[in-house]
Parts: sequence; structure tokens; C-alpha cells
Amino acid sequence: MRRNLPVFIGCDASYDEASAALFGAPFDSTTSFRPGARFGCSAMRTESIGIETYSPYQGRDLSDVKVFDAGDLELPFGNADAAIREIEKFCGIVLDDGKHPVMMGGEHLVTLGAVRAAAARRNGLRVVHFDAHADLRDEYMGESLSHAAVIRRVWDVVGYGAVYQFGIRSGAREEFEWARSHVSTELFRADTAPRVARELSGRPIYITLDLDVLDPSEFPGTGTPEAGGLSFWELRNALMAFAGCDVVAFDICELSPHYDPSAISTAVACKLLREMLLAFL
Amino acid sequence: MRRNLPVFIGCDASYDEASAALFGAPFDSTTSFRPGARFGCSAMRTESIGIETYSPYQGRDLSDVKVFDAGDLELPFGNADAAIREIEKFCGIVLDDGKHPVMMGGEHLVTLGAVRAAAARRNGLRVVHFDAHADLRDEYMGESLSHAAVIRRVWDVVGYGAVYQFGIRSGAREEFEWARSHVSTELFRADTAPRVARELSGRPIYITLDLDVLDPSEFPGTGTPEAGGLSFWELRNALMAFAGCDVVAFDICELSPHYDPSAISTAVACKLLREMLLAFL
Amino acid sequence: MRRNLPVFIGCDASYDEASAALFGAPFDSTTSFRPGARFGCSAMRTESIGIETYSPYQGRDLSDVKVFDAGDLELPFGNADAAIREIEKFCGIVLDDGKHPVMMGGEHLVTLGAVRAAAARRNGLRVVHFDAHADLRDEYMGESLSHAAVIRRVWDVVGYGAVYQFGIRSGAREEFEWARSHVSTELFRADTAPRVARELSGRPIYITLDLDVLDPSEFPGTGTPEAGGLSFWELRNALMAFAGCDVVAFDICELSPHYDPSAISTAVACKLLREMLLAFL
Amino acid sequence: MRRNLPVFIGCDASYDEASAALFGAPFDSTTSFRPGARFGCSAMRTESIGIETYSPYQGRDLSDVKVFDAGDLELPFGNADAAIREIEKFCGIVLDDGKHPVMMGGEHLVTLGAVRAAAARRNGLRVVHFDAHADLRDEYMGESLSHAAVIRRVWDVVGYGAVYQFGIRSGAREEFEWARSHVSTELFRADTAPRVARELSGRPIYITLDLDVLDPSEFPGTGTPEAGGLSFWELRNALMAFAGCDVVAFDICELSPHYDPSAISTAVACKLLREMLLAFL
Amino acid sequence: MRRNLPVFIGCDASYDEASAALFGAPFDSTTSFRPGARFGCSAMRTESIGIETYSPYQGRDLSDVKVFDAGDLELPFGNADAAIREIEKFCGIVLDDGKHPVMMGGEHLVTLGAVRAAAARRNGLRVVHFDAHADLRDEYMGESLSHAAVIRRVWDVVGYGAVYQFGIRSGAREEFEWARSHVSTELFRADTAPRVARELSGRPIYITLDLDVLDPSEFPGTGTPEAGGLSFWELRNALMAFAGCDVVAFDICELSPHYDPSAISTAVACKLLREMLLAFL
Amino acid sequence: MRRNLPVFIGCDASYDEASAALFGAPFDSTTSFRPGARFGCSAMRTESIGIETYSPYQGRDLSDVKVFDAGDLELPFGNADAAIREIEKFCGIVLDDGKHPVMMGGEHLVTLGAVRAAAARRNGLRVVHFDAHADLRDEYMGESLSHAAVIRRVWDVVGYGAVYQFGIRSGAREEFEWARSHVSTELFRADTAPRVARELSGRPIYITLDLDVLDPSEFPGTGTPEAGGLSFWELRNALMAFAGCDVVAFDICELSPHYDPSAISTAVACKLLREMLLAFL
Repeated sequence: MRRNLPVFIGCDASYDEASAALFGAPFDSTTSFRPGARFGCSAMRTESIGIETYSPYQGRDLSDVKVFDAGDLELPFGNADAAIREIEKFCGIVLDDGKHPVMMGGEHLVTLGAVRAAAARRNGLRVVHFDAHADLRDEYMGESLSHAAVIRRVWDVVGYGAVYQFGIRSGAREEFEWARSHVSTELFRADTAPRVARELSGRPIYITLDLDVLDPSEFPGTGTPEAGGLSFWELRNALMAFAGCDVVAFDICELSPHYDPSAISTAVACKLLREMLLAFL
Repeated sequence: MRRNLPVFIGCDASYDEASAALFGAPFDSTTSFRPGARFGCSAMRTESIGIETYSPYQGRDLSDVKVFDAGDLELPFGNADAAIREIEKFCGIVLDDGKHPVMMGGEHLVTLGAVRAAAARRNGLRVVHFDAHADLRDEYMGESLSHAAVIRRVWDVVGYGAVYQFGIRSGAREEFEWARSHVSTELFRADTAPRVARELSGRPIYITLDLDVLDPSEFPGTGTPEAGGLSFWELRNALMAFAGCDVVAFDICELSPHYDPSAISTAVACKLLREMLLAFL
Repeated sequence: MRRNLPVFIGCDASYDEASAALFGAPFDSTTSFRPGARFGCSAMRTESIGIETYSPYQGRDLSDVKVFDAGDLELPFGNADAAIREIEKFCGIVLDDGKHPVMMGGEHLVTLGAVRAAAARRNGLRVVHFDAHADLRDEYMGESLSHAAVIRRVWDVVGYGAVYQFGIRSGAREEFEWARSHVSTELFRADTAPRVARELSGRPIYITLDLDVLDPSEFPGTGTPEAGGLSFWELRNALMAFAGCDVVAFDICELSPHYDPSAISTAVACKLLREMLLAFL
Repeated sequence: MRRNLPVFIGCDASYDEASAALFGAPFDSTTSFRPGARFGCSAMRTESIGIETYSPYQGRDLSDVKVFDAGDLELPFGNADAAIREIEKFCGIVLDDGKHPVMMGGEHLVTLGAVRAAAARRNGLRVVHFDAHADLRDEYMGESLSHAAVIRRVWDVVGYGAVYQFGIRSGAREEFEWARSHVSTELFRADTAPRVARELSGRPIYITLDLDVLDPSEFPGTGTPEAGGLSFWELRNALMAFAGCDVVAFDICELSPHYDPSAISTAVACKLLREMLLAFL
Repeated sequence: MRRNLPVFIGCDASYDEASAALFGAPFDSTTSFRPGARFGCSAMRTESIGIETYSPYQGRDLSDVKVFDAGDLELPFGNADAAIREIEKFCGIVLDDGKHPVMMGGEHLVTLGAVRAAAARRNGLRVVHFDAHADLRDEYMGESLSHAAVIRRVWDVVGYGAVYQFGIRSGAREEFEWARSHVSTELFRADTAPRVARELSGRPIYITLDLDVLDPSEFPGTGTPEAGGLSFWELRNALMAFAGCDVVAFDICELSPHYDPSAISTAVACKLLREMLLAFL
Repeated sequence: MRRNLPVFIGCDASYDEASAALFGAPFDSTTSFRPGARFGCSAMRTESIGIETYSPYQGRDLSDVKVFDAGDLELPFGNADAAIREIEKFCGIVLDDGKHPVMMGGEHLVTLGAVRAAAARRNGLRVVHFDAHADLRDEYMGESLSHAAVIRRVWDVVGYGAVYQFGIRSGAREEFEWARSHVSTELFRADTAPRVARELSGRPIYITLDLDVLDPSEFPGTGTPEAGGLSFWELRNALMAFAGCDVVAFDICELSPHYDPSAISTAVACKLLREMLLAFL
């Protein structure tokens, strides 16, 4: 007798037949303001039943791609270093099997593990980063492994000019200064995504989506809402710019469902994940 | 001694003097994801005190029109067929008295009863449909009377080319395919409303507004929020396009107030109903 | 690669090795006041991580029993009759395999399917019923298959004197009158449970727990909260009275998690289910 | 065509046939901590559909008494003095018609108007007061008409020894000192209610129930929750002690529904009002 | 040992060194629909930790200006007249010390006290007013000191043509008629802000921001949400138009945090206050 | 000009005149289920305005004792070890000044710092521990500094027989086994508190109150609600048993206010802190 436990909608392929392995990374130990992103991946799986498998935007259905939902990693709680290594290890296995790892956070720090796995296997990896916050601190309250420093740590891996940020509208003065000479940052909007996508054509790309890049009105369920964000349409269009690219892996982070009793945040997260699965696989 | 129970703001005319009869249809038995639309009409009546009777958009006041608030129908719970017949019967009486029925849902299935009453009395009825979801399934989980099939059932009544959809952004692949040859559908937006309004000039129209056509940021209080929707302004403008038309009856559905503790959903529903009453009566 | 999807805590046995099969019945179509019990079983599975597998009350651990979590049934939405038949069928298979079916609702009507399966296999089945509401209407708003009539339907199956009610504190006058000559009812409390347990010793028993028998202060997350209920201790003690009995199957119903943002309702439901699994298997 | 607007459950008698007139007093302008009691009476009317008209405690049904639900008074907002006068006037009319006024607050200050009306018509009126707070300040932040001073103002009307308090567990030191020589106060509990009821036998009584006398666990939806309160059973028993008395009028106050998303507060308020109507009419 | 109590982020200057004194005015006694703005200033102080002190919009940091956070005024509760006088007195002291008073409401009526203080010290004061509601009633339910009449009262102080309104989209017919000949009102939007700013160049200005001018999707936490409002960007741009002007004092009102469990309303309020401090000091 | 920022009600003494220093420890990094206790101390300070300074239970007022509210410690986020050392250092200073440290958590791990400071200064320190959870794991998910291991760490400091637990009703089997030979544990209740208090008479005592020892009905706002807990009365009585003892320091932990929109949890926490301050200083 099989267990009929819910997977993310339409992601019911077996691992062997799948071209991608979707998994959850329920970790939020370094969140500094309002914790709760640990519940994001579970909420997305449960609530995904509220959306359709078909995208009228792309004219494709999740039945057209094959995705295996691996469930959640069991991450060593409170130990950022070990959690990142666990994620790196899992993504490595998936990549070595020739599949795309697709991660649902958790807080943004989980991205580091996935990027390390991808960068170790694909030379010249570029990282496309959607976020309200620059996440470029060298450390945060004394910790170098922090959600507020994650892109700085990612940069340690991929190096000069390999990070492209969109939608950034919050950070310390020092972050913006450092950004100018180390990464490519579009403030406030994501209008340059098509140009960047053309520039990155043919190169391996990791896409990390911190959902708080969306305006808080559309995505209230997050730890650190920051006004003046992207609309669903703006974000979707920017993401779609990378549809023809070589997207090795991607993630979607920082949904904190307890802060949104209406669950519109979870609903838009599910819809964006569907669109990304249909576009990047 | 009269009972001072709250009616929808400004709708305190007697039935005899009124040109429209507003009523509630508290029914949500076929809702498949998150139920609660049964509480929509009651919430609108209670919270309508938070808006003004005057519209600075139209320069008119609800005191300029005469509306009777009939309260709520007592619908046989859990029996979709009987509920629809009850609504049809009530609307028939109102129409036969030469007045406009104006319905507050409830889930979207309630529309079927009102359309049947209107179509039986006015030849060539056209149905203008604002919604996030196509609602064109032939059946849903084995049921032909379902919120997800309501416009298909409406089409059974009014026929080829008589349904005009706006704002649609969700549905099964089959629905979109069927739609192409049976109804008129504008995806994602409602820009063509003025053109459609001109086309329908002189014909009897039923307008059904599933409030989830609004973006979830503006209308989180609904069962199945779907990102990428219309703004209040876009919807208001599209509705106003039909201001000079022969609007026989109209409805406003799918407010599920328990999912929105801020009650901005109820507030925008009340405001839209005020604008519709001022424009269509 | 296995899927690491969450089961109810400690219920990770395979079907073959298990002595019980736990499953969810996400159905609430006949709920008359506030719907949402459809989300109960899913919430229990997700939130069960907040309790321990060990019971200091009984000195036993869920690792001492073997339970298979089968996930949720896919119930034909909006069709009470078919849903009940689906549940009856599943329970029949489990019973025929010599295991205990353990059901997480859903609304209380789901009990009917499980009782039918058990009664068909065990002569002289007795039903022990904890509830705030008598649920003895012959019909409710014209429907004979309704949450408000479920114990009346159960009585149709098991007959005179085979139903024992505890904690009842709400119902129509007619229900209480009918109860007097057809079932055994303890009003308001459950003090007589030990005596009833002795009386039922040796007989096959089905135990149905409508969680709203608890006081709303301890269990606010339910559709129809009714003041003056049992405490956790009173309910636990009454349930434990049946620990030595021949409990064929049991269920736990009417958790509606959306009405309780603190989730204390889900937590107490999980704890009670743990205690029941440890006591009755 | 009649308006089918919801009245408090079972209170659908006409004014002429009724022995009591139930009405709402939506006022909370003097609330000092968390406002919102203005929404109490409306919530009770709407949510009363969740309880039954029959009481298994008393074996009586609301159909056995005749109550007219007058709806809500339109109270001059922000003007405590005028609001109290409005309430006094309405209660006077009801009393002069030989009926019982039954008031749903609103904050506790509304009691003053009803007591004034009753005291003016019945010599030797006694006031029975259930509350967590003494409400005996001579003024509060400079205002003599304040929710925190209401029983002091009531005492101004009815005089030495005419006020009986139960359940009091909060107040300034001065209030408790003043209480000792002016009113009868039972701290923390309501065990003396039967003795007081016997003492007041034959005398006209006004009963005012500030619902925060209940424990916050059973009644979280109030402005100033105070731990260590009465249970539903304790309060019900204390109230029932006055069942045979000459209860001229009574009220139920301080439900602030927005603070309780589970609505168990509204449910227990409705149930208590039902019990009071059945016991005192 | 110093007390480490939270001030608004970055506002930790001493009074003497500061160029502005920020303070809270926790008053909402005249609110007519949903109260709770009394909690706004406290929430802003507590939640401000979620934003950065640096503005990437202006390239400035709160460490570049010197602001003293004076905490909250202790306003005589329920007495609008006395509360306004208290605010006027405090602002007078700050102004006489050559500093800017910056007020966090509270309901909008608190503005009257601050305007009186400013107008008494600066001839020809102009008032720039962002709001969804005209607030131009001569009285509201008999009260001349009401949130719904506050700008009319402000006009009594500053006179013909000295009030400039933006974003107005709600009011009684009479208010709009009166507005036409007494104040300057831009309906629905704030596009004319740059032109008005140029017009007011060199004149002393008071800026009052009723946060409900924002669209309810971005600012749900307010007493009277009114659909069709400004976006953060539109409001920010309009405010920035006054950056070079002689802004004597300003306020930010009508945040009612209890109505927004996601706290995006508080977050956007904090961000706007940061931008205003950086632009106007 | 002084800052009028809110302190805990009645705790406005200067440090020099005070006999106790109250402070907040906003830390919850090791919480394993639902985080948020970091917001507990701030909520208690803000909401304490809802209770009175006078206790009718003890006949004393907070004006009778002198307490300095030091505000919140700035704890190095995500680094449990450093946070504990910071707390230890602060408590050491207060103790060396001859005053009582009184700590508002934060999660329970913060207790370790305070106990270390007290044990270093008072030989033979005994620890009185109220909690639903044993907290006696030697490690939790690999971490020895964890909320689930805090009392085990405390035991490392104070040794055999020096820990007295009350109300414990949850833990792993191993914890209960270890407890039997190392600490004194009363399961489920706190009836033995008077006897323990007599036993500890004359010895220095540290009291740690994990508020989840209360029943979840009275205290829903916590990370891991566990049914079957103490009532306010039971807990208050148990605490009062230690009123005559030599209480060196004490704490109150694990309020997670975001999980309780009614804020009854914060209210009971404030009331208990008031009672403790009045009893132990």
C-alpha cells in the first residue's frame, strides 16, 4: 500500500525518470528579524493544490516536464555550517545524476550550499540574484555565515563579476559601496534582465530568488518586508528572460507563511515555482 | 418599534420605491480549495459602514438611486441544485416586478441561478464575466454543478459567443482550448472592455464579478488567490465601460472574509458594489 | 532516492509490519456553520513534530507500536455519499488485513464510512462517541447525510443501545428526546466512561472523537465551538478507560486549523492521537 | 417583500408580543487599553447562528420565550454623556411598555444608561455585577464617565449596599479600599451568588455581565484580559442563582471580537445570553 | 546604568545635539470605524529594527542627521481638546528650541495640535496633506474635533488656499463641494506635488501624512482602508518633491497595527519616516 | 528633555535606588519548533500597561518595591555561547551591586547565563524550575547549548539534587530516566511546591519559569504548546510558596507573542511577573 502524501503539485515523477529533483531546506537559524522561513517549503507543498498545473503564460503544463519531489532535507538545526554542507552534498548527488536541483527554502543562507555544489561542477558559474536586500555584508553581528551575508559568501565562490543582482533596495551603506566594484546590481527594478540574459547566454547559471524582492503587498509572508518591490508581472518577466539559458539549478527562498494568514504569499510562491519549472527544465 | 438592523450602506429604500433589490446568497458548498465565501455577503453588509455613500469617481451618491436590501436568501445547505433554483426563483420575482436583482455571493456557482432567471426573461442575454479562473470545466471531480464549471453551465444557457471573459489567468489546458471556440476571453487583463461594451450596446447584459479577478494583494480574502491580477483601477475602469449599457442584473462573488484579518478585501468589495450600483441602475 | 515527506510523528512503519494504518479523510462538505475541517489531517501531520513520541502518562513510546501513515484519501469532493463509500472501502481493506484503521478527519460525517466497515466485520459493534453535539438529527436542512446527523446514521447501522455518548452539551430539543430511548448519553461530562468501559469489556468497540468535546479554550480551532466542554485531563482519562478494551478502529475529527492561529488545537489533537495510538494498539 | 436580515438566534418575535427587547449599544469611546467592544453586539447577532435555540442545561428553548431584537442604537460617537442618555431613553420606553430591556454592549459604560432607566422606575433597585475589574474609580484620567468608573457611577444612582460584585480581581489599591465600605465584593470567585440571590429575593435586580469576568482562556476577545477568571460553568451557575429573582433588565458587555480570530469569545457570549434569556424572562 | 530601551532606529541623538525631536501621540478616541491607531507609534518604534538606517534612494544614512526620540506623550485619554493642547504645547517647546517636531500618530486629529504650534510661530504656514479621506467635514456626529474634520479645523487656523491635498478619494458630497472653493485638492493621485512644491518654495510648510493615502494592499493596517490608493513609489516621489522646501514640522498618522498581522504596514511606515527624516531635516 | 519610553509598568525606579534590575534577553536561536520568543520581553514591556500595579492577591503595589527596568541586552545573534556569557556578565554586575537580576526571555536557554552568575556568587544554589518540558537532553540535534538541554546544563553547574522541576509533561524517554536519579521532578502538577519551599528554606534559590508550564488555553503564545498544563491559579499558588525564601534571581521565559493575536499570553505573563516581583523582592 503506497503512502498518499502530498508532493508539490504535478511533481510526481520518480527520481529516475525525472529531469529535476525538487527538495525543501527548512532552515532559518540565522534570521535576524522575524524567523519562520523554516516553514516555507512545507507550506508550499501543502498549498500548491490551490494552483493549476497548466500555465496560460507559457502554454505548458507540469505534466510536460518530469519533476521528482524529494521532500525535505533533515538539516542539523542551529548549525549553519553543517546545514550548508548537507545541502551541498544533496545537490551534488542530483547534479552528478545529470538532473537539476531545485530548492525551496528556508532562509536565504541555504543558497550557499547549492551554489557550492553547482560551482564545483560547472566552470564559470554565474549567479542571478533577485532580492530586496543586498546580502553583501562581510559578516552580520559577528557571523560570516548569515542570511545577511549570503551573497558575499556566494561571491567568495564565484568571484568578480559573476553575480548579477536585481531589485535590490535595502542594505547598509558599506554594502552598496562594495557592490559597485564587485558585483552587478540593478537597484529597485529588474528591467535589465533581458540584457543580462543575453550576456549570459551559453554560460551555466544559478538563479536564486529571495521572494522578498516582490512588493510586500503581494508577498507579506516574509521576515523582513521591504516596501517598493517588484510586482508579480515584473518578476515573472525578468525570470522568463532566462528561459533559454543554461540554468543548472535554482532556488526560491524566504517564504515565512505564519506572517500571512491569507496565504497569498504561499500562493504566489507556488505559482512562481511552477513558472520556473516550466521555463528552466 | 422598528428593527434597526444594518443594511448595505445607503440601500434603505423600500421594495416598492426601489429600482433594484440587493440580496445575499450565502452558499459555498462546492468550493474545492478554501471554503468561506458563505460569509461574504454578511461581511459586506456589516463593513459597508466604513465607506461613504458618495462616489468622487462618478459624482453620484447612493441617495440618488433607490435600492432595497432584501437581506440573505435561506439556501438549502449542501444541495447545489436546490440553491440555484432558489436564487433563480427570487431573481425571477424581482425581474418580473421590473427591478434589477443585485446579488452578493457566496461562491461563484450562485451566478447560474441569476443568469437563468435573466435569460428566461430577456432574449439574447450576454454575460460579462470578470474572473481569475476560466470556470469552464465541463465537470469538476465528477460534479457538473461546481464553482469551477459555473461559466460552462452559464454557456449552456446563453450559447455560442454570448460570454465575454476578462482577467482570466488560471485554468486547465482543456478549458483554454474549449474557450477558444466557444467564448470570448481576454487573458490577464481587461483592456478590451470598452470595445466589448460598444459591441454589446443595446443588448441585455448580465455582469458577474468574481472578485478574485483582482490581484491578491488588493483582495487577499478569497478561497483561491491567483497572482498577477487586476488593480482596483483597472477593474473599475473596465466595469465603468458598461455604464451606459442595458445591465439587467449583476453580482459580486467569492469574498471569503475569514482569510483577511485586515478586511481590505471586504472594503474593496463594498466600494466596487457602490460603484456598480451607481453606474448600472 | 526516497521521498522524505512528513508522516505523523513516529508513524513510519511499513504497511506490512504495522498493526494500524493511519489515514486522513479531508472532507467537510456538509459543515453548516464554519467550514475548514478538510485541513485538519494535513495540519496534524505537519505539526506533529512539535510533540514527543514518548508519553509520560503511559510510559510508552510510539516506537513501541507499529503504525503506517497512509497519507490522505482522495475523496470525491461535494459528494457525501461517495466519500463515505470510499472511506468504508479503505477501512475494509485494512480490517481484512488484520490491522486497525485510524482516521483523522475531516468533519464528523466521515465516521459513518469507518463504522460501516467495522460493523460489517465485527458483530455487536459498540460505538463510543465523544462530542459537544448530539449529532442525532434525522436530517439537517433536508440532508440525511450531514455532520449533524452522523450519529443517527451510525445508529441506523449498530442499533438500539449500541451508542454511548459523552460530553454532549448541544442539540435540538428533539435530539435529546430521541436520545433518551435510543442511545446512552452522558450530558456535559464523561465521568461514566470507566463504568461503560467495564460494561463493554470483551465487545468490539469503535471510538469516535469529535474534538469539539473539548472546551473551546483548549480547542478553539473548530467549526462550532461550544462552551462548557471537557478539559484535556477529563478527556484523556475517559479515553484511557477504554485502554484494555477491544478497540477495532477509531477516529479523531473536526479540527479546523485555520480558526486557531496559535495552533494549540492542532497540538492537543496530535497529543490525543498519540495517547490513543499508545493505548488502543 | 420583507427584509431577511439576521436577528439574534430565536429572537424573532414582534415587539408587541415580546416580553423583552434585545438591543445593541455599539459604543467604546472611553476604553483605555484596547478598543473594539463597539463591534461586540454585531458579532453576537451574526455568529449566534452557531448555537442552538435549545438549552440542555435548563430544558427550555428560545421559542418558549418571546424576544424582539431591536437591532442597534445609533449612539452619538465620542460623546459618552449623550450615548448614556440615549440608552436610558430607549430602556425607559421598553420598561414603560412592561418589557425587559436586554442590552448587548459595547464597553461597560453603557450599563449606566440602563441602570438609570431601571432605577427611575423601580425603587430599591439592586445591581448584580460580574467583572474582572472593580470599575470603582471616581474618575479615570480626569473623566468621570469612563468604563473604569462605571460601577462607581452606578453606585451614585443606587447607593450604599445596593451593588454586589463577583469575580473581581483587578483594580487600583484605592478602589479596593473604597469598595470595602460601599459595596459588596467577592474577590476572584462567585461562590456567594446563591446566598446573595436569596438575600435579594423579591427585590428588583439589574444584572450586568462584563464578560471579562470569564477567564481569558475562555474569553480572549476582550480589551483587557485578566488571568485567573471564572470558567463558563462557574459563571453559568452563579447567573442561574438569580433565575427566580425579579430581574428587571440585564446586559452583557465588553466582547471585542477582533481580538479573537477563533471567535470562541463570541460563541460563549451568545450561549450565555441564551441562558440568561431563558432564565430571567 | 543606562536603560537600553528601543528608540526609532537611528534616532539616538541627545535632545541638545538633535535637529529634530521625534515623538509619539498615542490617541485615537475620535476614530469612527475601527480604532487602534493609538498603537501606531509604539509599533513603529519596536519594528523599526527591521529596516536599515541607510537609504539607497537618497544615498544618506540616519547617522547623517541628528534626531532625538522623545518617546510618547501621555495624552489625557478620551478628551480630544486636552490632547490637542498637550501636543501643541510640546511642539511649541521643540520649535522654540529651534528644532523640528516630528510626530508619529495616533489618529489624524493629532495633527491639529502640531499645526497650531507651527502656525503660531511661522507666518503664512502652508499645509501639505496626503490622505485618502478629505477630512473636511465641519463636524462629525456632532463633534467638531474629529478625525473626519481635522483638516477643516486646520483650515480654520491657516485659512484660504493654505491647504494642499493629495490622493483624496473618499468623502461626503458636501466635503468635495466645500473643498472646491477653500483648499487645493488633487483627487486620486499626487502628480501635482512637484508643481505645488515649486509654488511653496521659500514658504514654511507643515506636511501631514495620513498613511491611508497608500493603497490598502500596501498598507492594510489602518482603520478605514480605501481602495485605489497611491503606491509606495508614487507617495515617495510626491514627498521627495518637498525635499528642498522649508519643512517646519511633519507627521505620519493612522497606522493601526493590530489590523495587519504581517506588519507590512508598520514596515512601510518606518521606511517612509526614514525617508522623510533624511529629506526634510 | 527626558525620553518617555515605556518601561514595564511600575518599574520606574533608578538603578541606584532599586532592589532589582529587570532586563530583557531577546534570544531564540536554538528554538527547534516555532521561533519567536525573541519578541517576548518587548511585548511584555509594551502590554504591561493593561494590568494594574496593585495585586489584590497580595495586597501590595509595585510602588511598594523599587525596580529598575534596564531595557534589553544586545545579544550576539545566532551565537548561543556568546549570548549566555553576555547574560552572565550582566547578572554578575547586578548581583555584585547587591540587587536581584530579573530576566524576561527569550527562549529558555537564556536561563543558563543567569544561573551561572548566581551560582558563582552563592554557594549551594538551588534551582526551582517550572516547565512543560524536561529540558534534560544532553544534546539536541548535536548541540549541547540548546533550549531542550538547558536544565541539563544548569545541572552541570549546580549538581545532584539541586534542581526541582514542576509541571513537567513532555520529554524523551531518556530524559525521564535520567531525571529519576539526578533531579527532583513533579510530573504534570506543582502540588509539592510548599513542601519543597520548606525544604529550601534558608538556601539561595534561583527560580526559572518557562511559561509553557501553563495550559496552552491560558498561554497559547509559545513555541511548543503542550496540553494538560497548570492553570494560572495553580502556578500562582506554587510560586507564592517560595515567597519567604531567599530568591536570589528569577526569570520568565518562552513568551512568543506572534502566536497569540489576542495577547492573553502576554497579559498573563505580565501579571505573573508582577506577582513575582511583589513576592520575591
